[in-house]
Order: sequence, then C-alpha cells, then structure tokens
Amino acid sequence: MALNVAQKLIRDHLLDGDLTPGAEIALRVDQALVQDATGTMVMLELEALDLDRVRTDVAVQYVDHNLLQEDERNPDDHAFLRSAAQRFGLWFSGPGNGVSHPTHQQRFGRPGATMAGSDSHTCAAGAIGMLAVGAGGLDVAMALAGEPLYLRMPEIWGVELTGELPDWVSAKDVVLEMLRRHDVKGGVNRIIEYHGPGLAGLTAMDRHVIANMGAELGATTTVFPSDDEVRRFLAGEDREEVWRELVADDGASYDIDEQIDLSTLEPLIAKPSSPGNVVPVRELAGEPVSQVVVGSSANPGLRDFAVVAETLRGRYAEPGVSVDINPTSREILQDLIKGGWLFDLISAGARVHQSGCLGCIGMGQAPATGRNSLRTMPRNFPGRSGSREDSVWLCSPETAAAAALTGVITDPRDLSKDKGIDYPRPALPEHASVNTAMLAEPLPLEQARDVELVKGPNISELPDFDGLPDRVEAQVGLVVGDNVSTDEILPAGAKVLPYRSNIPKISEFVYHAVDGDYVDRVTALRDEGGHIILGGDNYGQGSSREHAVIAPRYLGLRVVIAKSFARIHWQNLANFGILALELVDADDYDDIELGDTLVLDGLHSALRAGDTVEAGSSRSEASYTLRHRLSSRQVDMVLAGGRIPLLREKISED
Amino acid sequence: MALNVAQKLIRDHLLDGDLTPGAEIALRVDQALVQDATGTMVMLELEALDLDRVRTDVAVQYVDHNLLQEDERNPDDHAFLRSAAQRFGLWFSGPGNGVSHPTHQQRFGRPGATMAGSDSHTCAAGAIGMLAVGAGGLDVAMALAGEPLYLRMPEIWGVELTGELPDWVSAKDVVLEMLRRHDVKGGVNRIIEYHGPGLAGLTAMDRHVIANMGAELGATTTVFPSDDEVRRFLAGEDREEVWRELVADDGASYDIDEQIDLSTLEPLIAKPSSPGNVVPVRELAGEPVSQVVVGSSANPGLRDFAVVAETLRGRYAEPGVSVDINPTSREILQDLIKGGWLFDLISAGARVHQSGCLGCIGMGQAPATGRNSLRTMPRNFPGRSGSREDSVWLCSPETAAAAALTGVITDPRDLSKDKGIDYPRPALPEHASVNTAMLAEPLPLEQARDVELVKGPNISELPDFDGLPDRVEAQVGLVVGDNVSTDEILPAGAKVLPYRSNIPKISEFVYHAVDGDYVDRVTALRDEGGHIILGGDNYGQGSSREHAVIAPRYLGLRVVIAKSFARIHWQNLANFGILALELVDADDYDDIELGDTLVLDGLHSALRAGDTVEAGSSRSEASYTLRHRLSSRQVDMVLAGGRIPLLREKISED
Repeated sequence: MALNVAQKLIRDHLLDGDLTPGAEIALRVDQALVQDATGTMVMLELEALDLDRVRTDVAVQYVDHNLLQEDERNPDDHAFLRSAAQRFGLWFSGPGNGVSHPTHQQRFGRPGATMAGSDSHTCAAGAIGMLAVGAGGLDVAMALAGEPLYLRMPEIWGVELTGELPDWVSAKDVVLEMLRRHDVKGGVNRIIEYHGPGLAGLTAMDRHVIANMGAELGATTTVFPSDDEVRRFLAGEDREEVWRELVADDGASYDIDEQIDLSTLEPLIAKPSSPGNVVPVRELAGEPVSQVVVGSSANPGLRDFAVVAETLRGRYAEPGVSVDINPTSREILQDLIKGGWLFDLISAGARVHQSGCLGCIGMGQAPATGRNSLRTMPRNFPGRSGSREDSVWLCSPETAAAAALTGVITDPRDLSKDKGIDYPRPALPEHASVNTAMLAEPLPLEQARDVELVKGPNISELPDFDGLPDRVEAQVGLVVGDNVSTDEILPAGAKVLPYRSNIPKISEFVYHAVDGDYVDRVTALRDEGGHIILGGDNYGQGSSREHAVIAPRYLGLRVVIAKSFARIHWQNLANFGILALELVDADDYDDIELGDTLVLDGLHSALRAGDTVEAGSSRSEASYTLRHRLSSRQVDMVLAGGRIPLLREKISED
Repeated sequence: MALNVAQKLIRDHLLDGDLTPGAEIALRVDQALVQDATGTMVMLELEALDLDRVRTDVAVQYVDHNLLQEDERNPDDHAFLRSAAQRFGLWFSGPGNGVSHPTHQQRFGRPGATMAGSDSHTCAAGAIGMLAVGAGGLDVAMALAGEPLYLRMPEIWGVELTGELPDWVSAKDVVLEMLRRHDVKGGVNRIIEYHGPGLAGLTAMDRHVIANMGAELGATTTVFPSDDEVRRFLAGEDREEVWRELVADDGASYDIDEQIDLSTLEPLIAKPSSPGNVVPVRELAGEPVSQVVVGSSANPGLRDFAVVAETLRGRYAEPGVSVDINPTSREILQDLIKGGWLFDLISAGARVHQSGCLGCIGMGQAPATGRNSLRTMPRNFPGRSGSREDSVWLCSPETAAAAALTGVITDPRDLSKDKGIDYPRPALPEHASVNTAMLAEPLPLEQARDVELVKGPNISELPDFDGLPDRVEAQVGLVVGDNVSTDEILPAGAKVLPYRSNIPKISEFVYHAVDGDYVDRVTALRDEGGHIILGGDNYGQGSSREHAVIAPRYLGLRVVIAKSFARIHWQNLANFGILALELVDADDYDDIELGDTLVLDGLHSALRAGDTVEAGSSRSEASYTLRHRLSSRQVDMVLAGGRIPLLREKISED
C-alpha cells in the first residue's frame, strides 16, 4: 500500500493500535523536548516516579520561557532545572541559549524520528520530516520514562502546494491562509501533510513557520517530507549525517485533500484576538501601530530577521513605535552579527532583546493600553500579551517591517511602490554559526546519580488528587463560549509563570481575566462535591500547559462538559482525573445555566460499559446525554484520579 | 583668589548665597535630566504647575528604568512621557535608546554647565567638568520651570591622583578604594574634586565611573576638570565645539585634601550588601558565583564591555553562570558590533539584553536565592536586585570577566598567571557610532501647545498634603538603624516601579522588606496625628526617588528623627512637608522606642526662631533636643505642606 509521510512515521513507531482514524494508538517516542514553564512540573513528576535516567534517545530541557528574573523564583527554577537535567540525563539548554523549537531543529532534529514535547508548538519539528507532538507535561514525563505516547489516530490532511510565493509574501502568509480558510479548529484530530512542487521554494526554516502554527489550526501535528532542502539545512548545521530521505510513496493518498497556489497569496494578518481572524493586510492599511515585535518560534529563521533588517537598512523606525527584536538563538544572533543585520536593526532604532520567547508568552513586551501591536508570533489570544486591554495582530516579518517604517499597518508590497524599496532577498550563509557552548551534554550515569536536585523555596510538590466518585453531584461553576484557550483558563505572563511549580498559588489565577469571581465561587464549592464547567466548541485550545488542568482540579473541578475539546487539553484532563464529556445534542448547551446542580450517577460502570453517560439537572429536571471518548486506558486513569496514581502502582511493580 | 573647579562652577551659577560651607546657596540650572521612574511624577508636577515650556537650555526625558513591560503600565507610562516631553519641550530618549547618564554625557554634556537630574547618579556628568546634582523629582520640576537649585554649600574635597593603574585594575577600583577608605557617608555635604597627574590615564568614560559612584559616598557631587581628555571625548562624539577648558587655578586649594597613588591599587570588590563593604578581591577568591552582570551607569564605557569581551574571546563562560550584558546605549551597541566585541560576548555564552538600567534597579536579572551575583553596578543594598535573599557584589569589569570564566570569585590578575591571558587593552575607535535616530528633538512651541498628554488608566494624580500642625503628637511608628537606603524605604524593581504614577498603590510597598507590618501599623495611626520614624546615621542614602517621601507622607508620616540624613532624601522630606530633625545628643537614639508617643509643641514659632525644637516623650517623660537644618525658605515649605502649595501661590501671582 502506498503510504504518505505521516503514515510512514506512524507505522515505524506503532506499538499498539492501527491506522484507523479515531482509534487510540500508542507510539514509541524517540525524542523529548521540555521547556521551563512546563518543565519544573515534569521534573517533579520524574522525581516522584523515582526515575533513574530518561529512556528516550534524545531528551532536552530548554530554558526559554521564564527569562525575566523579577525576583528569585525564575532563577531558582533555572537552577532546579539544570540540576534535574543533570540528575535524569537530559541535555540542558540554558537561559539565553535559544527558543526550544528552532534550536531543537538545528541541534537535534532527525528526519524519521518521533518527538513528544511539553509545548504546543512542538509540532514545528515536522518541518524536517519528524512526527512531533505537543503534549501535557505528564505525557512527556511518561515518554521520558519510556512509556508510549497515546493518541487518537488522526485523519491525514494533504495540502498540495503549487507555484511560487510573490515578492513580499512569505511562509507566514501560507499558514495564515490556512487559518483564514479553516480557523482555529480546522485541524482538530488531523495531521496536516504538505506536499507538491511548491515545497521547492520553502526552506526548512520556512517550513518550520508553517508547521509551528499548525498548532493554531488545532492539528495533532504537521509533517513535511524530508527532501534535499532538509539535507541542505542539516548540512548547514554540521549534521548532514542524520539526514535520511522520507517522502510519500508514489500514489499515496490522503483522507482530505486541499491545494494552495502560492503565487496567488498576498500579505495576510490575523486581527485581534484570535489567530483565525485572518484578512488581507491591505484591508486594514492605515491603522496606527505602537509596537512591532519580531521573533518567536513562529518566525525563527535567520531570514525572518534579515528581511526586516534589509527593509530597514539605512532607514529609521517611525518615532513612537517600539520595534522589539527577539533573536531566536545564540546561533542566529551570531549570524545576524556576521551578516551585518543586527547592526542594521539597532541602527534603525530597534530594541534587541536576549534570545527567548519573551513577548510571545507575555514575558515582558506588553503593549500600551488599547494600542496596536504587530507581531510575527503565533498567538494573539486576549490578554496573552500581558496587557488587560490589548490589541495584538499576527503577521509576517515583511508586514512587521512595513509597519515599523510607516507607523501604520501597511501592505509591504506598497514599500516597493511608495518608497522604492526592492524586496530583500538576504544572502544567507551556507553554514550556520554552530555554537554549543551553553548546551550542556547529559552527565554520565554514575556522575548523574550523585547530583542533588536544587530546590528554591518556591518549588512545592504536586498535590495528590482523589479518584472520580461513582456519583458526581455538583454545581455548574462556570459557563464559557467557543474556542476558550488555555491562556484564558490560566494566563502565562510574567506575573503568573513564576508560580508554575506552586499549584496552590497559581490556582488563584484560574479564569482570572474571564471571570474574576470564579476562584472564590468554586472554592466555596470544594467541599460540596466540587464543580462542573460548561464550555463550547474547541474547549482548551492553544498552549499545552497542564497547569490549566491541575490548577482547576485543585480548585475542585471534576467534570467539564463541552461541545468539543482541543486535543492536548482533553488529554491533560484525563491525565489529572477530570472527566471530559461532549454534549451529544449541542443545543443542550443553551439549556444549562450557571449555578445548576447536575447529577451524574453510576459513572464507574457507565464509563466502562459504553461511550455515553446521563446528567440530570436539579433545576429543569431535564436530562442530558453526554459522550466520553476515553479509551479504556484513560477510563482507568480518570477513575484512579489521574495517570500518576496508576503509574506509581505500575512502577512499584517493576 | 585661586579657585578650584567646583568653586568656579558654583561662582558662575550663583544666584543667591555665598561659598561658605553649610550656608544655603541658589544655583542657576543650565540642563535637566529626567528618567522615567521619577519622570512620570515630574511631568505630572509640570502639568499641575501649568507650565507652558521648560526654561533650561537643555532638558531631556530618558526612558531607561521601566523597560520590562509585564503589563500595560510601563508602556502606558512611556507613551505618557513621550507626549509630556513633546508638550513641555524636552528631548525624548525612548526605551532602548540608552542609560541616561552616559547617553547624556555623549549627546548633551557641556563642560562648565550645571545640571539637575531626578536620579541620584546625575553626578556622573562631573566627569566632563559639569556641576551635576541629583535631586528629588520636585526639585527638578522646579529647575525645569526656571527656579534655582537650592543646596547647602558643600565642602570641597580635593583628591589628588598620582601614578598609573596596574594591569587588571581600572576606574571602578579607584572609586571602590574611596569607598573602602570612607564608606557610604564619607562624602556627605562634600563635593569631591579629582585632580593631579593621575588623571592623564583616565578617559572621560573612566572618569564617569568614578563620578557616578560619588553618589555611593554620599557626596553632593563629583567634579573633574575639563581638559584635553574631555576635548578628545567630545570630538569623538562629533561635539568638539562645546568643549571649553575648565581647570583649577594655580594655587587653588581644597577644604579637605586626599591622595591616591593609582599604581598601588589592586582589584577591589564590595561585599553584600553595601557599596562600602570593600575588600581586596583576592581575600574572597574561590567563592562560587552564579551570575555576572556587566553594564549600568557605573561602568558604561565601550571599554568596559570590550575588556570583558577580549578576556572571554575564544573562551566560554563557566556553565551554570548566567553572564548578563546590559549595553549602555544604541551607540555603544553599534560600536560593540563594529569592534567584534558583541560577537565575542555572545559566542562565549553571554545573554545580551536591550540597552537600559535593567538589573541595576531590579528590573529583571534577579539572582537565585542566596547565590552570589557579581555586578559592575553601583549599588548592592539588600533586596535591590529583586530577590529576597540576595547576595550581590560590586566589582570592575575585569573582576566580573574573571568570575564569568572561572565560576568563582577570582582576582583578575590571576588570569595572566593561571591562564596566560594578557591584560586586554582594547583598541577603541576614535569616533563613536553617533546615532540620534531615537532621540526626538523638542517640538516647536506652536506644535507643542497642541500636544495632548496621553494618560493610561494607571496614571493618577499627586495627593494634596496639609501643612505641618503647630503641635505634633504622634507615635513612633518605626525604628531603623544606620544607613537605611531609599531602596529599603521604597523598593524599586519590576513589581513596584510600575506604580510610580500611583501613590495610593505604591504606598503599600513602603518598608515592605524591612518590616512587613509597618504599613498596617501606621495606616491605623493616620487619623490620630500620623506617625514618626526614628532613624540612625545617613538616613535615606542611595537613590533620589521622591516616592520614598511621598508614599510615607501619604501613610501619615509627619516627622523623621535621625542621627543624620542623606542629602537628597533630606531635601525631598522638606519638599513634601515632612519635618526632618537630627538628634543633638546621638545617645537619645537608644532612649526612644517603637510605640512611644512624642509631643512636639509650638513648632511653627520654634522652627522660625532657631535651629532646635524639643520633643517630650509620653512614656519616659524625657525630653529630647532636636536640630533642624532648614533654611527659612524650607521652613516655609514644611509649614505649607511642601513646595508645591508654595509654588502654586507664586505661579498664580506671576
């Protein structure tokens, strides 16, 4: 049978299940990526499991999120993560060394490998023919411990690219076009596989841009073939030896087919406050801009900075516009200096920051109240920037550079017409400035065993959670709409992120911006059976943060009822013993109100026996039919209070 | 009469008074420097005074403090300051453009001029023959409005420099030697004037290092002559035309004489947690280090970064040491790139940040709990770094580079012996990369009048304060020891600084780290006559922040009794109507206790009639004699509730 790239990757790693869409499959995990915001919890989980050494081929702990050290908590976490990486045998990429996804692609990416990562943009590694899946921290901890990664087998969505991108249009516009067509849940339970002649014009880092923001489409992951372009990329990183060809068989087919003619694309922009609000830039031309931010894993390539630098070369940013540059990594910083681009950027008025995620996760760089901020980043959910009344737009480096020059939203194609600026085609070096100085190798096992974990005073333990009762009788503590993101459930940002290792404290921020009374209201219900949340479609989209599950669980959340769930969040719910249920009849959503008491009885046998349960309402005496999509493995977890209690049993039997 | 440089500067600007040490003098102010942390209040004060246009020759609003934009408050302040600079006719140096003091020296410094600055390190401009005085925001607002700067005429302390600095010893070690000899109050009520043949080996930026940290000695200011070295500096900045010679007359004398033979100096370091705890580096060699920070107005010169870069060139920082580089300005960043130094630093493992004060004022870069941080900065007061249990050391760039390489405190002279590293003598360019792109000129008056102030929701107004009653009967609400700094009274840092334009909110942080109950305790006393603070020697040293007066005043502070006061804080107290009194008998300090009620009666006539008042204690029935050093001008202010009510009257009469 002729297979596509995604199918080959799955087949080569399949430990359990088959390739029927919808069925649970278990995959062998070759590599694992952990970042610091989710990583402290992952390391505490490894400690709780008494793991001696990680079991994946490659495991890397990156510090790229919590880089602003406002007080001792973030640097204490850095020291903890460094000691944990040494103890458990991970590579350690320290603060300032680079954003995880592009750095991983440069230093560790291997075509044909699978990867689990505790960050939703892990999928970016699909750019070089990997099957890379963002997951909750606990799923990654399990992968590090040698357990399989469990997924529902997705549909494979083939997107054929033809033609060539016009001047001033780049990879970011390709994925914005996908978001324009399909919005933020168009990719749910799908793997997007790009193929076709249009690939020839996209470098491995261009493909990274597109694969990265597959997360915004809700896709399980994105894959590209591993072709000569990937070989060229790896050779430039002194790693050609790990290259292997991985392309679809002749005659391979896809569950869904789509086509994009690159030559028809134009500059696009996602309006506030969803990556799916995509329109042509020209429609918004003239809107004033007060900030432009270039960087993040969504536009990480040397080219993405160089094109901005060359557009600004010899010119100045508009006064009053803060032009913030977040270089991807030490390597890219060095190449930006060598090529003269960093000089151009600084000379033009940019603020150049250390390498890291920074403004992309609200770690500084918050915009002024109500003023437009254009960013080459992947997300613009409300408040993610750190500002209460924010107005964040997502665009390509070309569109960002145009706004920096003019101070208003500007179709970059107009720069040629109005200012005589030729579209820059930066001459990139064949070989990157490979710098592994701050990338610490795993310690040899004997040394590793002597390492003691360094725990600052803010690092607490994971709370124990009890199992799901057979009868849940609880109030609806919150009702929310469609596409609620994990940023809304639990914000990131400089104020909240330092509490990532402290569940009781971080719980005070749950649904903070959505409903300031939520925490008090549901805390009062904690000893009266906890509470239930009612959501709409695509509940829990966005970041993979498992804290968006652990913290509400700590506040007494037992059941979430929604029209549909985003993949990673749905898995995280099960991992921590919260029952996720879909409304069989979506219209029931309108019937359920805040404060209703719902009764779900006989849950244990119902969950094991079939895929639906009934909920009775104390108010309307109505009854709602709810579907669970849990595998029997996941039912066991939920009944036990989560995956940790189950695994503790298993490991103690080993 | 033969005059020294300080006397010439004063004579040329004297509007009132004479040169007798101790008497109040009034000086004409040529230039004014405002930074953003103090600047929002200054601009609100200009607004309250209904000022049409600033009246100094040069006035510059810098944004260098509140650069981390955790939420909307800091960027809202930046937008406000930009609009206020436009409205009132100041230059505006935006975020990322540079640290105020060195940038000012490069772009605006003029030998022979006076300057008032709302930052305690304003004195750094003495490096090029200016008389530059750090003052509270209100004093600077008054200077901007054309009012004189009032000072008590200081003694002139001549420090003769002879000899040449040995290898691995630099300007920072000169001022650390002064601190070793004289501690943090050795310079109170003095102007330090450096002279002698040793000056020939010190560039204008080396002199900046020494003049800057005159603030740490408590000096009113520091002056250097304007000689050929200053001419060379200004020529390198394309500003030779503003140079004029300003040197002491033959036979000029000083009130105090001191000598430093530069050739006898060795690398020095200030231990936690005072700039006065200075010892030779070799005595602490071997102490582990987890962070090294290079930058700030205390070591701002291109050379200070280049020497670190060349020491690290081709080598790597010790793993686990965070090497943070804070480039001084856009200009210096560009020169660091041109010289290859930025590449060296990044290649060696450094984290390079945007231009600004950053970690120097606790705006990020906080160290891990209890771990040693070596910094080329001017201050290491407890908690100033942002971490609760911090351990911050102050040293030269050479000593910082040595620790970055070895991971322990290391006498940099050992680098030659142990590692064969020659002492770097970086080849600096004759001409700097002058870049004024982000330095906005004042608007023409007609345009300026049309500018509306842009006020974000966090920008509130200055509270009105009532005058000092004739009888104060109030409890002692706090007792503190010697050398309490304004960092302890009101911390800076990323958590507190965003409230600089919001007095009620920022008041919650007063004495936060010293006594967590202070705010609640004295708030309860607010309607019962307020409270009194008892302090030791040198009360209120350090930063010029007037919030350390306004916020306690808001909490009901009416009188501070201390053994002695730091100059700027003492002036700020009078400016906001708080009575500062010195114990005539220092032993009375031990007699007064927390919770004592003190009665000061007949204050109005007593303050006008003489220089002492009596305070009776309700507990011991003792009576304490207290000296005020207020001029009659200042007595009027205190009785009126501060300088603003007085000036409002005056301006309405204009």
